[in-house]
Amino acid sequence: MEVQVMQDILGKNDRIAAENQALFADKKIFVLNLMGSPGSGKTTLLERTMAALKDELHMAVIEGDLFTTKDADRIAKYAVPVMQINTSGGCHLDAPMVQEVLSQLVLDRLDLLIVENVGNLVCPAEFNIGEDAKGVVLSITEGDDKPMKYPLVFKESSIVLLNKVDILPYTNFDMAAAREDIHTLHPDVKLVEVSCVQDTGLKDWYDWLRAKVRAKKG
Amino acid sequence: MEVQVMQDILGKNDRIAAENQALFADKKIFVLNLMGSPGSGKTTLLERTMAALKDELHMAVIEGDLFTTKDADRIAKYAVPVMQINTSGGCHLDAPMVQEVLSQLVLDRLDLLIVENVGNLVCPAEFNIGEDAKGVVLSITEGDDKPMKYPLVFKESSIVLLNKVDILPYTNFDMAAAREDIHTLHPDVKLVEVSCVQDTGLKDWYDWLRAKVRAKKG
Repeated sequence: MEVQVMQDILGKNDRIAAENQALFADKKIFVLNLMGSPGSGKTTLLERTMAALKDELHMAVIEGDLFTTKDADRIAKYAVPVMQINTSGGCHLDAPMVQEVLSQLVLDRLDLLIVENVGNLVCPAEFNIGEDAKGVVLSITEGDDKPMKYPLVFKESSIVLLNKVDILPYTNFDMAAAREDIHTLHPDVKLVEVSCVQDTGLKDWYDWLRAKVRAKKG
Repeated sequence: MEVQVMQDILGKNDRIAAENQALFADKKIFVLNLMGSPGSGKTTLLERTMAALKDELHMAVIEGDLFTTKDADRIAKYAVPVMQINTSGGCHLDAPMVQEVLSQLVLDRLDLLIVENVGNLVCPAEFNIGEDAKGVVLSITEGDDKPMKYPLVFKESSIVLLNKVDILPYTNFDMAAAREDIHTLHPDVKLVEVSCVQDTGLKDWYDWLRAKVRAKKG
């Protein structure tokens, strides 16, 4: 019975995700569903990205959190439209939650929408929200064993950002092993090493976003 | 309907948790449900704890992971009984999973059982497994905003281990703010600052475990 209920929930989610996807296709907006553990650096990555690209692309952000508007408050400083979804303890965003806030965003001139999912390496990867691509931020302080322990999010993601490489010397993180595991799980994935606090390695990420936005515009 | 189903699942879980709890009471085993984000350092903490206490206490470990036996393999090196639960993608342990592996552990001489839950700051806190206490490991690399963003796990835990303090100088983590937020959420919580790789601050944690084991023995 639990399996049947899970299928019902996923079935309903997929129907709404398809509606979101159709809307994004109509408006030609590239939508990225950004995932990662708590504290992997998703919001700091978005802060850097807003600062670097907001004069070049029309962007908006949806922030998913269990409680608080801490992340949305950080993004709002960059004068980019930001919507907060509070899941009230829920461990992931789903397509209906995203659909509900989309009605409050002006979509007509938008090029890029980034949805920062709840900090969780497990559940968010199971729910499509109508996005064009998923991405995952893995901070090197989490350890090089994480891709094989949490494979779904790495298989589902088109881009992996290995973050906090500035503190690599103070950890036992094996970069070669991590890269190999990620490529084993997902041979075609785009893999970028970045430090958001030192602003290094981010050009590849920006170029990846630019190319995706261009492709969506057609 | 989803709410009703969630109540059914939690109701069934609580019934089995009560059975586990009765067994632990009968055997006078102190059981800790240890939670934290992926890469917060739970397994490394257990490795240090095995090395320090295994000649003094009869210990066993249950390792919860989505896939792989990577953590159980690490614990097994310490010649402490270890059981692996693989949730096949599930985001938390529940009481029935724990009950199933308990039948394969020799409980009669055990003083302390530590259950390392799935790396996830959200879902594990919602499911009792029959434990005497919950604990959470928060690595300072995750950021000082995490207690307020993930309040349930901090409210539920009797002890909070702030881990990786050795790399505090290379982060922007505000220790005073984190301590204040944790105490706001849970005034009576035990809070310990540790570095598992540098083996510092762990004596308080060992003493807390010793006291809990003694109290359970009665």
